[in-house]
Amino acid sequence: MSIVNIITLTTDFGLTDPYVGQMKGAILQKNIKTRIVDLSHCIPAHDIFTGAMTIAASYKYFPSGTLHLGIVDPGVGSQRGIIAATDGLHLFVVPDNGLLTMVGRGNGLKAVYRVENSNLFPSEVSNTFHGRDIMAPVAVALINGMALAEVGTETDFADCVQLEISEPIVSKDKIVGEIIYIDGFGNIRTNITSNDLSDFQPSSFQEILVGKHVVNMISTTYAEQEPGKLIGLIDSAGYVEIAVNKGSAAKFTGCGLGEMITLFFTE
Amino acid sequence: MSIVNIITLTTDFGLTDPYVGQMKGAILQKNIKTRIVDLSHCIPAHDIFTGAMTIAASYKYFPSGTLHLGIVDPGVGSQRGIIAATDGLHLFVVPDNGLLTMVGRGNGLKAVYRVENSNLFPSEVSNTFHGRDIMAPVAVALINGMALAEVGTETDFADCVQLEISEPIVSKDKIVGEIIYIDGFGNIRTNITSNDLSDFQPSSFQEILVGKHVVNMISTTYAEQEPGKLIGLIDSAGYVEIAVNKGSAAKFTGCGLGEMITLFFTE
Amino acid sequence: MSIVNIITLTTDFGLTDPYVGQMKGAILQKNIKTRIVDLSHCIPAHDIFTGAMTIAASYKYFPSGTLHLGIVDPGVGSQRGIIAATDGLHLFVVPDNGLLTMVGRGNGLKAVYRVENSNLFPSEVSNTFHGRDIMAPVAVALINGMALAEVGTETDFADCVQLEISEPIVSKDKIVGEIIYIDGFGNIRTNITSNDLSDFQPSSFQEILVGKHVVNMISTTYAEQEPGKLIGLIDSAGYVEIAVNKGSAAKFTGCGLGEMITLFFTE
Repeated sequence: MSIVNIITLTTDFGLTDPYVGQMKGAILQKNIKTRIVDLSHCIPAHDIFTGAMTIAASYKYFPSGTLHLGIVDPGVGSQRGIIAATDGLHLFVVPDNGLLTMVGRGNGLKAVYRVENSNLFPSEVSNTFHGRDIMAPVAVALINGMALAEVGTETDFADCVQLEISEPIVSKDKIVGEIIYIDGFGNIRTNITSNDLSDFQPSSFQEILVGKHVVNMISTTYAEQEPGKLIGLIDSAGYVEIAVNKGSAAKFTGCGLGEMITLFFTE
Repeated sequence: MSIVNIITLTTDFGLTDPYVGQMKGAILQKNIKTRIVDLSHCIPAHDIFTGAMTIAASYKYFPSGTLHLGIVDPGVGSQRGIIAATDGLHLFVVPDNGLLTMVGRGNGLKAVYRVENSNLFPSEVSNTFHGRDIMAPVAVALINGMALAEVGTETDFADCVQLEISEPIVSKDKIVGEIIYIDGFGNIRTNITSNDLSDFQPSSFQEILVGKHVVNMISTTYAEQEPGKLIGLIDSAGYVEIAVNKGSAAKFTGCGLGEMITLFFTE
Repeated sequence: MSIVNIITLTTDFGLTDPYVGQMKGAILQKNIKTRIVDLSHCIPAHDIFTGAMTIAASYKYFPSGTLHLGIVDPGVGSQRGIIAATDGLHLFVVPDNGLLTMVGRGNGLKAVYRVENSNLFPSEVSNTFHGRDIMAPVAVALINGMALAEVGTETDFADCVQLEISEPIVSKDKIVGEIIYIDGFGNIRTNITSNDLSDFQPSSFQEILVGKHVVNMISTTYAEQEPGKLIGLIDSAGYVEIAVNKGSAAKFTGCGLGEMITLFFTE
């Protein structure tokens, strides 16, 4: 893997407090040429699942050799570990709390190390901000060319903390899934993927039940539905999404995270 | 025009979802040295008017040769086109939905092309995210030196979609305009410009009527009014603005977008 | 001091309006290679105290030679001055309204100048946006190597506007302080520092009174307390902080800015 001098940041720090600025300073102080790209600092506080979704949804679009630093870290200061990993094309540094769950599932991480080399971080490490004091310097060391094996001991990804992810249940005439994300436009993402759909003939599709609402169209684009009406489609990441053309499906249906979604087919 | 390797982004993606990160990745993957500058990702969802105002208000401050990429795209996936344009100093890539209305009016675009060259985008284009899959690669191709004529067919700006913009009505003793924007400080921007005012002697100014409130001072700076009181002034973009020194004119007056504003003069 | 080509921005402009973009354009137009790092644009409107806290909390993490530009400027257009300053390692450009109070107290500014050299800014300066029209070009001139003495006249920091900062009152069996900041996680920062605590034996600590709530543990990390319970600790900037492990102390206690906090000790 050829490293590029780019670090992306995904955090739950928000945009008001000085934490994002301190992280950026800590990075630039170690490598003044590093390009820092904000993925999001608006992950809800302590919401590891959303952080994990965000990193998994974004990292592949970056040049290979990019390092992705994720700090959603409610266990900071406890005995939770820190891991550095690679899928062969990208590098990752995160607390060991499940933040790489989706990256690991989808693509297979090639190597995972527990960060243990305390030579990499300053002598005084705060107990409440390991992102700045440990993970930033480890990330820069890797970007500067340090081998993963030098940051600590290799481990199995299976031995790292994993988030539990609900899987859709596919039977011969339906798929039962749930809402796993609602974006800023009010588009509803389910845990049902285009893969799950491939077991059925497109012509056998009947309807989708979302709360009390029936969606009777699966399409490829918002615009095939009239404005203001519900539509099902495959979103830009391969998930079944419920949307409203030029509107908010979340507002329209009143549905929230975790709610059941059922796709019906004729046998 | 000498290109500089800067792309500005103006979108309605918000700062929580992974869309901004994916756009940035898509740009950097095509040109790892491109500098990406966020103008705003907080344009209200689907609000083309505000997006158009933001681009028009900002682009002139950038070095000539900068490319401005605007993605407020409620018609994504429909037959709406995509345009690439230049005013002779700056480049623009946007959906053809009115997002360049104010740029085109104020300064005159020198050349406008419909994006048609599908060699520029990946073989698999999503139906819901043309910003990432089409407009980002087109923008980078232009930044990399491709001529506008190579991205598609030339068209007239007048044949592109335009937003309807209300014009103030100027008569001999008054100007009747409306509120077109309210900023984060609560400053109220009207559609009346310093140009409209130039038809009147400054000494003939009487008052401004804003809802039920009377503003009896047009000044050049907030500080000429007492804190907490209304003042009219010419804002930093040349529009008549209603403000409250160290306060919010929007809260003070209770007025919102589209509300009528009248300036009275003695004949 | 060896200058590095980095300017950090701390403003109350918010992320929706075009003001941040215009600032960035104004900087890049003067020096196209300058790296602009956002510290925060979400300082509450006109809240100089929070802006001053943010700059003071962040600047030390940046490489020496970085310039920090702070624009929280409710007095824009009035006779308030603009200052450029250095602590020997970093440069600062801000309105003279107290925005450097904490930087000046904590570390001692080595030199402070009043910005007066109008050759540095454009002939047409708006009355409502000195950040873009005056402070940005002054900042870039300094980054480009201009000496501080060339931007104006030297002054004493003591002659600049200072914020009043309440100091904790230390007596032989208690410290009485107050809440000065609440971060996005709901962590409560007090004006009591680890320095104030050093007058007491750790073993003499009894409890902290926060509103009606009693905190009976001062620890070094959130995780030493059970989730959902209050804990006192020294935060990553050296202040006594009241937190809830994996929760929000602000919500838990219902306390807000300015509220009294008392630490009790046995004599």
